[in-house]
Amino acid sequence: MLFHVRMDVCIPHDFPAEQAAEIIAREKAYSQELQRNGKWRHIWRIAGEYANYSVFDVRDNAELHEVLSGLPLFKFMEIAVTPLLRHPSSIREDDT
Amino acid sequence: MLFHVRMDVCIPHDFPAEQAAEIIAREKAYSQELQRNGKWRHIWRIAGEYANYSVFDVRDNAELHEVLSGLPLFKFMEIAVTPLLRHPSSIREDDT
Amino acid sequence: MLFHVRMDVCIPHDFPAEQAAEIIAREKAYSQELQRNGKWRHIWRIAGEYANYSVFDVRDNAELHEVLSGLPLFKFMEIAVTPLLRHPSSIREDDT
Amino acid sequence: MLFHVRMDVCIPHDFPAEQAAEIIAREKAYSQELQRNGKWRHIWRIAGEYANYSVFDVRDNAELHEVLSGLPLFKFMEIAVTPLLRHPSSIREDDT
Amino acid sequence: MLFHVRMDVCIPHDFPAEQAAEIIAREKAYSQELQRNGKWRHIWRIAGEYANYSVFDVRDNAELHEVLSGLPLFKFMEIAVTPLLRHPSSIREDDT
Amino acid sequence: MLFHVRMDVCIPHDFPAEQAAEIIAREKAYSQELQRNGKWRHIWRIAGEYANYSVFDVRDNAELHEVLSGLPLFKFMEIAVTPLLRHPSSIREDDT
Amino acid sequence: MLFHVRMDVCIPHDFPAEQAAEIIAREKAYSQELQRNGKWRHIWRIAGEYANYSVFDVRDNAELHEVLSGLPLFKFMEIAVTPLLRHPSSIREDDT
Amino acid sequence: MLFHVRMDVCIPHDFPAEQAAEIIAREKAYSQELQRNGKWRHIWRIAGEYANYSVFDVRDNAELHEVLSGLPLFKFMEIAVTPLLRHPSSIREDDT
Amino acid sequence: MLFHVRMDVCIPHDFPAEQAAEIIAREKAYSQELQRNGKWRHIWRIAGEYANYSVFDVRDNAELHEVLSGLPLFKFMEIAVTPLLRHPSSIREDDT
Amino acid sequence: MLFHVRMDVCIPHDFPAEQAAEIIAREKAYSQELQRNGKWRHIWRIAGEYANYSVFDVRDNAELHEVLSGLPLFKFMEIAVTPLLRHPSSIREDDT
Repeated sequence: MLFHVRMDVCIPHDFPAEQAAEIIAREKAYSQELQRNGKWRHIWRIAGEYANYSVFDVRDNAELHEVLSGLPLFKFMEIAVTPLLRHPSSIREDDT
Repeated sequence: MLFHVRMDVCIPHDFPAEQAAEIIAREKAYSQELQRNGKWRHIWRIAGEYANYSVFDVRDNAELHEVLSGLPLFKFMEIAVTPLLRHPSSIREDDT
Repeated sequence: MLFHVRMDVCIPHDFPAEQAAEIIAREKAYSQELQRNGKWRHIWRIAGEYANYSVFDVRDNAELHEVLSGLPLFKFMEIAVTPLLRHPSSIREDDT
Repeated sequence: MLFHVRMDVCIPHDFPAEQAAEIIAREKAYSQELQRNGKWRHIWRIAGEYANYSVFDVRDNAELHEVLSGLPLFKFMEIAVTPLLRHPSSIREDDT
Repeated sequence: MLFHVRMDVCIPHDFPAEQAAEIIAREKAYSQELQRNGKWRHIWRIAGEYANYSVFDVRDNAELHEVLSGLPLFKFMEIAVTPLLRHPSSIREDDT
Repeated sequence: MLFHVRMDVCIPHDFPAEQAAEIIAREKAYSQELQRNGKWRHIWRIAGEYANYSVFDVRDNAELHEVLSGLPLFKFMEIAVTPLLRHPSSIREDDT
Repeated sequence: MLFHVRMDVCIPHDFPAEQAAEIIAREKAYSQELQRNGKWRHIWRIAGEYANYSVFDVRDNAELHEVLSGLPLFKFMEIAVTPLLRHPSSIREDDT
Repeated sequence: MLFHVRMDVCIPHDFPAEQAAEIIAREKAYSQELQRNGKWRHIWRIAGEYANYSVFDVRDNAELHEVLSGLPLFKFMEIAVTPLLRHPSSIREDDT
Repeated sequence: MLFHVRMDVCIPHDFPAEQAAEIIAREKAYSQELQRNGKWRHIWRIAGEYANYSVFDVRDNAELHEVLSGLPLFKFMEIAVTPLLRHPSSIREDDT
Repeated sequence: MLFHVRMDVCIPHDFPAEQAAEIIAREKAYSQELQRNGKWRHIWRIAGEYANYSVFDVRDNAELHEVLSGLPLFKFMEIAVTPLLRHPSSIREDDT
């Protein structure tokens, strides 16, 4: 089941740089693991912003929450979720 | 080059049903033609709304506008465009 | 799977009263059928507004959209969907 | 009497972790006690957010305020209250 | 039980003047009847706007909705309800 | 002359508790003095929020500002003022 | 007593041009009469918009409402009122 | 003197197509005349919208308003004006 | 040339009181100097808020920015500028 | 390819003045280098605000992001990007 997610990251300017770097590294590993197992279908950077649009493919709302609340950057993010479904005009096999 | 687009459709309730059906049919054909030639990469229905999130892959801003302003439903739509780029954490070949 | 839905109804003041009454009657029947089969878990009127908060229990996003877009009043509604899940503090068996 | 409540929790990132854990534990106990005595009818987690939608069943506005302002997390919450009533289409005995 | 209500009236400029006058007359009578029986505690005009702030004293949310949805101008109004209670600093006997 | 005022209080979570208690005590005394002399006509708590709706009866805008800017909690408040007047449908002697 | 007022005018595009011209002429006469008797202290056009910022000097809120609701264009306007007072830094005799 | 202007055009869907075409043609001629005489410095289409960002170079606010309110599409536009000045980091001769 | 300016002041509650007093004193002197030389035409306090509406009469946008960015409280202010011009209905000599 | 960018700068009032000055100096050098090589086409100060409107001419979305995220002030900025294209009414050779 697909969900559209916008994530805006805001790390306070006085947060220790080393800690931030460590969290960001964990975030990247976490994201790539989820991409590899197919749950994080797409991730795109939004031009000019520390933000991304993503598409998740998860079993249900509970799994989506588990994945999102587990993000190492979760407490520095504003997250907006939109449930998606196949568009009647879509011709792609895998946008379902 | 990728663009994230949200389209909200609002056809006035007193617009003639036949004309609406004819425009919607042309919209579907137009969308599928663009999907087939690769310019309209993704389209998903937003649950509960007459709206979609789409990703376009076009040469430049001018081509994006040509494609969007040519939509048969263009004058009944509110459209919001966000320029995208490859996310540094992405592992997909084709999200570029 | 649970979804929180807010529906705001706005029928134009010059819409024929008889047609409106007929649509509203169909809306009620449609809602009650969905309540009986368990898909429309809760519906509450919002005090002072022609609006409701509802909770749906459906198979997935696609079924939610099918149910909502089939509402007889759909084209007179503004709808906002929020995916829900069991709260870790919940003690009710059936809020899952 | 029923009230719809949305609670958004925002604990500052530099708030001591131990204190936060202690407040959150008290919050859970407080919530479950109110669920057991029937005043906190429903609580659902909102997917992807540190937030919930709840339904309270209290004697009056004063009791609602007493319950909400007594939340251990109250000063870290943004709260929005909406008075509810039985919907004319409802068929459930207990959504009143 | 007290509720704060803001009502904004918007009668379309092309609505027949006679019908409007008739509805407004009924609205006044309706309001004054409710003021006399104590349910509509206060009503003040907002300077420069076709709007009012009111305070209602009703048995519960259901009676509030019954009163508001019965307003002859209801379908030309935008209404916002806020539940009130006695303020701990209040010294007035009757602001409860 | 009547004014509708909404006050939202936001004391930072790390503000010393003793100082806060002292300011809140002065606030209460200040409010009750103004209620006794008739300038602060009404004050109601908004359910679920650290906020109130009030009605002031003052000589003019200058006196209103003097009263509001003198609030011990003034610098922790967001304040919104709306000028009121007698509503043509009002039947109460003292809502003027 | 001074009030700051913003007025945005929106005459529907299909409103008969002659009627509009007649109302606008009455509006101008009405405004100039109030300027001459000192109640309408200032009026400035906002660049690029069919809107103005004005300052009124009236006896009280009631007179302000009488003046504003009497505007020939009142039903085509959105009006926002802000009560003003002498600024402690002001050196002008007449900004009171 | 420079001004940044955003113009959003909204022609009602049921406005006669011929009249619209005639107004749009006059709009284009009007714009190009102002571009030629240097008052309309820049105009760019916003991708995906019937809107533009423009920069005007005019004598003063009054001339800006004269130019904008003279637009053939003025009554179908929403216009937002922002006064600009030379940026201290600018190296262009003509961005003043 | 006239500009309408709204200034909202927000000094953090933990900013040293002495420093704040010193800045506010300089602000007052700065404002009065500009009022005396005619560039700061009007300044009014907004009732109930630490904010003002002002009208400036300056040579151009650059001078307006110089004046505003030179305010001792500039970094504690949110500022909104609106370019003004003579209103066609104005009868005052000096509202130009 | 052209992009319209609005940048709002917000440096916390307690950020060390020397560090701020050093970052601002690097920001200026960075901006001027990009202006010289043609990627930062225009930059204008917004009157009364610590903000600018800019136009960038870059190869694609990725280069735009590289340029913007490399701004020395990036983490103190709120940035909004709008893709632009040649306007059909434009007569300037270089607004493409």
